[in-house]
Amino acid sequence: MSEVLTRLGDILEARKGASPDSSYVASLHAKGLNKILEKVGEESIETIIAAKDAKVSGDNSDVIYETADVWFHTLVMLSHLGESPQSVIDELSRRFDISGIEEKASRNK
Amino acid sequence: MSEVLTRLGDILEARKGASPDSSYVASLHAKGLNKILEKVGEESIETIIAAKDAKVSGDNSDVIYETADVWFHTLVMLSHLGESPQSVIDELSRRFDISGIEEKASRNK
Amino acid sequence: MSEVLTRLGDILEARKGASPDSSYVASLHAKGLNKILEKVGEESIETIIAAKDAKVSGDNSDVIYETADVWFHTLVMLSHLGESPQSVIDELSRRFDISGIEEKASRNK
Amino acid sequence: MSEVLTRLGDILEARKGASPDSSYVASLHAKGLNKILEKVGEESIETIIAAKDAKVSGDNSDVIYETADVWFHTLVMLSHLGESPQSVIDELSRRFDISGIEEKASRNK
Repeated sequence: MSEVLTRLGDILEARKGASPDSSYVASLHAKGLNKILEKVGEESIETIIAAKDAKVSGDNSDVIYETADVWFHTLVMLSHLGESPQSVIDELSRRFDISGIEEKASRNK
Repeated sequence: MSEVLTRLGDILEARKGASPDSSYVASLHAKGLNKILEKVGEESIETIIAAKDAKVSGDNSDVIYETADVWFHTLVMLSHLGESPQSVIDELSRRFDISGIEEKASRNK
Repeated sequence: MSEVLTRLGDILEARKGASPDSSYVASLHAKGLNKILEKVGEESIETIIAAKDAKVSGDNSDVIYETADVWFHTLVMLSHLGESPQSVIDELSRRFDISGIEEKASRNK
Repeated sequence: MSEVLTRLGDILEARKGASPDSSYVASLHAKGLNKILEKVGEESIETIIAAKDAKVSGDNSDVIYETADVWFHTLVMLSHLGESPQSVIDELSRRFDISGIEEKASRNK
């Protein structure tokens, strides 16, 4: 399921232990939770502003970019708290009754 | 790739045209972009507060729930602007050099 | 100095002990800090959205209203933490080298 | 009324026309409304995080500092939109039935 986010979660987990000098993700972890949450907040604000501009211009490129930033920084936040993207994907699957089981089964055929 | 979010995107797209009385998603579209963006902002704030509490309590359940709310409302925003979740997944794949091609190929075997 | 905000601070302090059923301010204190902070966040988002709309429409009435909501809820937050508006006014006075002393003296002439 | 904020409004108005190289306020105006609104949002998030920490530590110094940043950047936003702090002070006075008239009269005695 949600393989790109799952694999991104794996990448973020691997970078958690990298040198803060060489990895943006590691530098966020080194600065701590408050810095990560400030980034979640900043990118959400930038997404909102980009969406207002997209509504006027008809160009969605900035809002796509900023939304990717929001998702990315929430994944770093989850990783900092010891949580994987899968827990959020499972929550959304549960809410919308999206099962991955059939699909997994069909893939194994 | 990212099948749960992709399928959630399909569900949101289908509900876009539902009656605002019967569907929360349709009611958000009927209220318009500002209301959707207010929800994106509110859920981001609630995620930040939940993460601060999780750091103290060690219980991540609220932060998972609120992050799901953020992702969900950004998906509604994208749908309102005529955009699919795939565009954000593609942006993240591009940034982190995550290719879905090999996987698709292996699945078809 | 800043008499309206100071007097508003006094009003908020008095309402802190009122019945949550009769006073919005008391109901916020009863719900606790997280609820107050959610309101600070929500009103900030609504201010940002209103400012984007004001830029297009030329009508500032909503942005004035939402900014008043932000200031008001930050005052409730300060009160909840046992702090007065004066501490923020003092911080701004210090930053911008605004002294209230000369003026007070000249007023007494 | 609210003399410190009113005088701060005057200072901000004067700096609006300064060189962006010499004045932070002028540099914000030069970057435009989106940059100013990003700062309003960022400082609101930092206020929320500081308030959560203050609740645990009992130290309000950061939350006072961050609230001053929120008020300051909303004042820059109002100035950018051609609005004075007085319009927000008037809105709060109206809501809470705070009149400045008696006081002005007493000052003139």
